[in-house]
Amino acid sequence: MVEDQVRNVIELWERSIQSGDMKGILANHSQDILIYDVPEPIQSKGLVDYEKAWQLFYRHVRPGNDIFVIEGLRISAGDDVAFATGLIRIGGSKEPACRLTLGLKKIHGNWTIAHEHHSAPHKHDH
Amino acid sequence: MVEDQVRNVIELWERSIQSGDMKGILANHSQDILIYDVPEPIQSKGLVDYEKAWQLFYRHVRPGNDIFVIEGLRISAGDDVAFATGLIRIGGSKEPACRLTLGLKKIHGNWTIAHEHHSAPHKHDH
Repeated sequence: MVEDQVRNVIELWERSIQSGDMKGILANHSQDILIYDVPEPIQSKGLVDYEKAWQLFYRHVRPGNDIFVIEGLRISAGDDVAFATGLIRIGGSKEPACRLTLGLKKIHGNWTIAHEHHSAPHKHDH
Repeated sequence: MVEDQVRNVIELWERSIQSGDMKGILANHSQDILIYDVPEPIQSKGLVDYEKAWQLFYRHVRPGNDIFVIEGLRISAGDDVAFATGLIRIGGSKEPACRLTLGLKKIHGNWTIAHEHHSAPHKHDH
């Protein structure tokens, strides 16, 4: 099933993040990936900036099974475009701290992550 | 073209936000929409909570052409699943302050917004 193909790509990515395997992290990403990350800048583009973001991450966090865990992954997949959503537990936290939306496209027969939106909600002013 | 159909739905939504037309805002949303919004909570679901979020928005902002403007809208559309990305200028700001990712599905022949992820980046600690 198409949804399973997309799930495999996302789970490989998640496991690669946990083990600090940069090659696995980048394995199914498009060259021109559009990144909306938790910290500034407001956006960045391309695999070079994408790899830098993970290098920054590993300056603060050591590889381990609990450093990046997707909860409630939901996939909506068509024949060649898909999106996926889930919450993320970071660095061993019990409660999810971030939200994740992925945009995927099938390119040359392979499901490819073309967009990542990671964010943490802001506290209310009052 | 499929992409134009998706674009029409998003532009109708954008114009409805600008004019404060709640019926237009909700016109093409799925009942079980998944919302990752700028402020807490970390997530919410369904049209009731979605409408509440816009009611809260209009407590702070009066309708106008510049209150919610999508810049650089990019659409990836398949036959029945699509996602879209863009930056948002809010309340007349010159620079975009937020990021937007939309997830859409074709339901009963109509492109429907099933997921919205709005966020603002966090400033670096240092």
